[in-house]
Amino acid sequence: MQIAIPLYDRFTALDAVGPYDVLGRLPGADLAFVAVEPGPVRTEQRTLALIADKALSEVPRPDIVMVPGGFGTRDLFDDEAILGWLREAHEHSKWTTSVCTGSLLLAAAGILDGVEAATHWLARDELAALGAIPVPERVVQRGKIVTAAGVSSGIDMALHLVALEAGEMAAQAIQLGIEYDSHPPFDAGSPEKAPTEVVEFMRTVGVENA
Amino acid sequence: MQIAIPLYDRFTALDAVGPYDVLGRLPGADLAFVAVEPGPVRTEQRTLALIADKALSEVPRPDIVMVPGGFGTRDLFDDEAILGWLREAHEHSKWTTSVCTGSLLLAAAGILDGVEAATHWLARDELAALGAIPVPERVVQRGKIVTAAGVSSGIDMALHLVALEAGEMAAQAIQLGIEYDSHPPFDAGSPEKAPTEVVEFMRTVGVENA
Repeated sequence: MQIAIPLYDRFTALDAVGPYDVLGRLPGADLAFVAVEPGPVRTEQRTLALIADKALSEVPRPDIVMVPGGFGTRDLFDDEAILGWLREAHEHSKWTTSVCTGSLLLAAAGILDGVEAATHWLARDELAALGAIPVPERVVQRGKIVTAAGVSSGIDMALHLVALEAGEMAAQAIQLGIEYDSHPPFDAGSPEKAPTEVVEFMRTVGVENA
Repeated sequence: MQIAIPLYDRFTALDAVGPYDVLGRLPGADLAFVAVEPGPVRTEQRTLALIADKALSEVPRPDIVMVPGGFGTRDLFDDEAILGWLREAHEHSKWTTSVCTGSLLLAAAGILDGVEAATHWLARDELAALGAIPVPERVVQRGKIVTAAGVSSGIDMALHLVALEAGEMAAQAIQLGIEYDSHPPFDAGSPEKAPTEVVEFMRTVGVENA
């Protein structure tokens, strides 16, 4: 089971690493971080770089494609190096997946034309403008395309994928392995649940976090 | 607010990156990944490297120390390069924190002698053997020491820290920014909730995931 996570300048670290630490524990996983050129790729906050071990061209047809989001997605809407790779990979993939604004790249590649998909709650209009149909859910599966909402939802999406690929017990074992029994100090993780002033604050200043 | 996340060979990626994507959004955060020597540091699964931008010696007295866990902790129980740095950092820190088996390193450094602390559920005996008092909770704060349980609990711990440092609204804004409204497909994230056969499976084969 070959899994590829493409990185690009100014991706969101947790979008990539949440699913990594779930899918990487899938029995038989052959997982690689990939980029146009192998080497370090910086996150949007610039304070961390992950190393892409392989070039996109070395992993043209992974079984699972997992596209993280990040500010940097907006620089790639005409970037054939990544969009062409996504189209080719999607044509042959078993699962084509994204987290957060990673779905904007799938849409820019033409993969989500008229398809229902999730994205960061602040990016739903952008996703619609690229031809997809935004759905305000945490994990959306339509055929072999599985998209997740903002950042942390990639963990949920990856557990969903593990259940599909290896069964419920494998997914539960991985969930227990990463002790994913969320108890945040507040219940503010979605625009429906967060206090109105927090939602408005994020609408004003937080769009760069999407 | 200087924040240091020390890396070492065979750390768990999500232990480090969950808190990174929360604490890094703290207003005024000056966050750096550090290691004995700057450069790439591999995760326990070997399929990913994060770059430590600075040497431990360049960041001797961060305001917040955040120690991730991982298989590799067990190779460091006599490693003065990291344990001495932890002791010095803890002496001057505002907050000394860990995720998962990161608390084993704090304990090995003598920082948790007789102190209640969290760790991965499979590592509680190891933590006790190092002189700490394991507590089966997701986030444990004792004075300026804040420890978290397994892997994903670092996200909860970091939100708790942000609330302490910058207030509830800041923590809620960051929680909303990363859409942390967990909805995993199963309710198996703790040994109390997971099916018995999954817990037993993890006890048998999963100790290397701790």
